[in-house]
Amino acid sequence: MGMVETRRPRADRARQVADLLRREILQGRFQQGALPLETALSREFGASRNTVREALGLLREEGLVERCPGVGTTVAAEKYPHGLHRLLGLAETLREHGEVTNRVRTMSDIEPPAAVRERLGLMPGERVVYVERVRSLNGLPLSLDLTYLIREVGEPLFDADLERTDIFVLLERFAGQPLGMAELTLEAVNADPHTAAVLEVPRGSALLMVERLTHLADGRPVDLEFIRFRGDRLTMRGHLRRDTEGE
Amino acid sequence: MGMVETRRPRADRARQVADLLRREILQGRFQQGALPLETALSREFGASRNTVREALGLLREEGLVERCPGVGTTVAAEKYPHGLHRLLGLAETLREHGEVTNRVRTMSDIEPPAAVRERLGLMPGERVVYVERVRSLNGLPLSLDLTYLIREVGEPLFDADLERTDIFVLLERFAGQPLGMAELTLEAVNADPHTAAVLEVPRGSALLMVERLTHLADGRPVDLEFIRFRGDRLTMRGHLRRDTEGE
Repeated sequence: MGMVETRRPRADRARQVADLLRREILQGRFQQGALPLETALSREFGASRNTVREALGLLREEGLVERCPGVGTTVAAEKYPHGLHRLLGLAETLREHGEVTNRVRTMSDIEPPAAVRERLGLMPGERVVYVERVRSLNGLPLSLDLTYLIREVGEPLFDADLERTDIFVLLERFAGQPLGMAELTLEAVNADPHTAAVLEVPRGSALLMVERLTHLADGRPVDLEFIRFRGDRLTMRGHLRRDTEGE
Repeated sequence: MGMVETRRPRADRARQVADLLRREILQGRFQQGALPLETALSREFGASRNTVREALGLLREEGLVERCPGVGTTVAAEKYPHGLHRLLGLAETLREHGEVTNRVRTMSDIEPPAAVRERLGLMPGERVVYVERVRSLNGLPLSLDLTYLIREVGEPLFDADLERTDIFVLLERFAGQPLGMAELTLEAVNADPHTAAVLEVPRGSALLMVERLTHLADGRPVDLEFIRFRGDRLTMRGHLRRDTEGE
């Protein structure tokens, strides 16, 4: 008996094979970009050719592999790991994968609604700086970031090189102290048509949505961000511990 | 000038408002489940009625709110926070939100493919226990979990109450030691038709996909899981630190 019992529906067996292949693709097992032939995969996973073919179809739907006539199945796109073990800016975390560039879509001094004011611990009447950026790696769109900054660190950004620098790095420079802790909420959402156009993905594509409130080392909240990462280009990687050390 | 400059496309302003509303919904600001009237939201966000309406439309598409004739816009579904600060089983992390139940779709002793064997640090020929479960909270499907366990902790599961107990809790009992660290990869993927049917969501719905390799306190890897969470029901919440303490 192979890995996958034949009594189970083929779609279940295909998903099981697809998950293991996805993992191997993300790990960079297929260095030349070409997956083994279906017969070899069939042997490796103890699954029928039809199951393997359906598994490859699932990964193709995700945009992870493509079928090239005469060549077989190849890895279609690199998916980059964003560190989840430490608070890092995008360029910092993807340093070894290439160059991050940022296109500023809008930047202005605004009167924040209560939802922003409360998160940033501001008094009524205090203004914030709003920045909206499309962030790309090696020229390919990776994320759309909506950012609210307290004025002390936000105002100097108008004169900074936002195109080529993480906001985190600039914040630490302007605040004269390192960042401390960030609260993070992660979700998976479907791309609405307008966001899909900005990120150059099909409508409805799965996005990794991150809401992040970052504090300075002294505890003051300074930076509230809403980030939509392309699901086909980015993974988050980290570690969790069972004990509560550091809580 | 309000929060959102009128020169920007309305879709951009709507996204900005939607993100703040999403946050407030997740925070439980609208206790009775009813959002303020469009005129009130318009004032609060310094945005036009049309922008607010479009923002509500985006949240409706996500399944977060619904429009009830004569009542206005109401919160459609609770979205549960999964702790990302500590390694927890689903029932443990959602304890205060209700009862987690598990439907075992398949469970068997299998010969693992190389991809599983290597992750679990097993020798060729060593077998593993494969478990596939649909996990629900208060009767509503939340996730589909594919789990590979080393035999020492997997075999006793055949006689355990998997319907009502987290595997984590059982593993610690069978191993006679607590769990230690887990490596985690998070992605956003679209639901294929078969998975969508299992999780009772529309095809293509955004899912939060988690691959997790869990180790015992003594360092041995014991549990490799591939988990698909419904994007409309679950968020991941945690903290990150800028410094590298604990690395």
